[in-house]
Amino acid sequence: MRSGELTGGTEVEPGGAADRAQDRVRERDGGPGRLTVVGLGPGSADLLAPMALECLVRAGAVVGYDRYMDLVDPKLLAGKTLFSSPMKKEMERTAKAVDFALSGLDTVVVSSGDSGVYGMAGLVLEYLEREGLLHAVELDIVPGIPALCAAAALLGAPLMHDFCAVSLSDLLTPLPLIMRRVRCAAEGDFVIALYNPKSRKRGSYLAKALEMIAAQRGPDTPVGFVRNAYRPDQEVRTATLGSCDPEWADMLTTVIVGNSATRLVNGKMLTPRGYYEKYGRENDGN
Amino acid sequence: MRSGELTGGTEVEPGGAADRAQDRVRERDGGPGRLTVVGLGPGSADLLAPMALECLVRAGAVVGYDRYMDLVDPKLLAGKTLFSSPMKKEMERTAKAVDFALSGLDTVVVSSGDSGVYGMAGLVLEYLEREGLLHAVELDIVPGIPALCAAAALLGAPLMHDFCAVSLSDLLTPLPLIMRRVRCAAEGDFVIALYNPKSRKRGSYLAKALEMIAAQRGPDTPVGFVRNAYRPDQEVRTATLGSCDPEWADMLTTVIVGNSATRLVNGKMLTPRGYYEKYGRENDGN
Repeated sequence: MRSGELTGGTEVEPGGAADRAQDRVRERDGGPGRLTVVGLGPGSADLLAPMALECLVRAGAVVGYDRYMDLVDPKLLAGKTLFSSPMKKEMERTAKAVDFALSGLDTVVVSSGDSGVYGMAGLVLEYLEREGLLHAVELDIVPGIPALCAAAALLGAPLMHDFCAVSLSDLLTPLPLIMRRVRCAAEGDFVIALYNPKSRKRGSYLAKALEMIAAQRGPDTPVGFVRNAYRPDQEVRTATLGSCDPEWADMLTTVIVGNSATRLVNGKMLTPRGYYEKYGRENDGN
Repeated sequence: MRSGELTGGTEVEPGGAADRAQDRVRERDGGPGRLTVVGLGPGSADLLAPMALECLVRAGAVVGYDRYMDLVDPKLLAGKTLFSSPMKKEMERTAKAVDFALSGLDTVVVSSGDSGVYGMAGLVLEYLEREGLLHAVELDIVPGIPALCAAAALLGAPLMHDFCAVSLSDLLTPLPLIMRRVRCAAEGDFVIALYNPKSRKRGSYLAKALEMIAAQRGPDTPVGFVRNAYRPDQEVRTATLGSCDPEWADMLTTVIVGNSATRLVNGKMLTPRGYYEKYGRENDGN
């Protein structure tokens, strides 16, 4: 890695601290640094796992999508080699992170939520495979709280029974496959978490998906919209498929649709798991 | 709450500390305590979110399934009112927790993983609704790392595309509905996480589910078995549907079956999201 190198992203190398960190790693064993893909969770520091924090603390380099780098405490990034770039530059960030690790830096790639759920873990593993580097760099993956769990906690308890996650982004997935999955999820009476419900180019996919589910479950099915969970501008709304407006969602929103048993309780979504049906109150210990 | 009360569970009230905590809360505002359902994550302290830790620290009472209470650092429980009970006593634990909160104690109900994924969040909300207590007690839900994300991180990157979670426990769900969901998940080419794959009474459900998926995707489909993720006796195995043995799973195992694109890479599961197909290496920044 050369100081000041810029390849479409933003690279900051303050005061040679990273070089010193790199030298330290090289002195230690002369080999590559560790490569770790870390889920930041929703973004709030109090939902960041200590294991993820520890990885960030010990890292010599941190790589991520620019919006997600902003979720990391700047104090954690000070003195480290940083590389961030916009959406759709995932391949570039992956190559950069692997370069950093090969050069001896302990390197962390950050994702929001869980790095294994529509995150960076898969691309990093695939890159190592395709470049013949599986044995050259040790890859660790640290799990985090995924967006669907963060959204669910704010909505009540919508995920208490079998559920699916479907991304409505057709950037990498053909639309017919996306809609087939929505149909199968509706037929299976799964609770459905919709990721990437909207972007400028995909105005109508969410409305179409919600219509397909409503056709199966009816307009009274509860639905929740959570935007920026556990971040300062968090927004939480519940409604029904018949009364919601797909325009409530943007690209930072997770949408959760209840199954046929989900109901709204005091403005919260509740998907009962069947304890009352099975046990009544015979077993409640009072 | 009466000292020494035992209602089928284990209640410990060491040295009146809980009474003092209760008095302290009552002095503060005379009202009920906070009721919080907390996901412990996989169980390892370094995957417990600071928000969940803070709830445990400030709690006057902690309630949970006995196996999950064992995941909590004993130092965190010292001096608190504790109530734990075995599996199938969820209604009892819920009633107890609500009693504690009504008596003025800040009360935490613990689940493993995420409390909203097959956890206690839904039952606590439903109990408050059915008992007419929705406005008497404030309920908070703190998200955690769910078992499927913990398992996925150890297996590689199996969840990188649309996925489902299905519990094979028929304690509260009719078997035909479970198998319908497995069939729909297979038809939709979802990555499938199977919770509760086995118990003494349900010897063959996992084998049946894996057969149904193999009929759709073929015997070469990768599958991972993770037992006790991030706990001292963790076990991780990958194989294919044709070569795995359902006997590898017990009730502490999460099983993840890949979709039609998932492959085994260096013993890890990888579900590519399609970056290479879309972008090749044109965009990798080298």
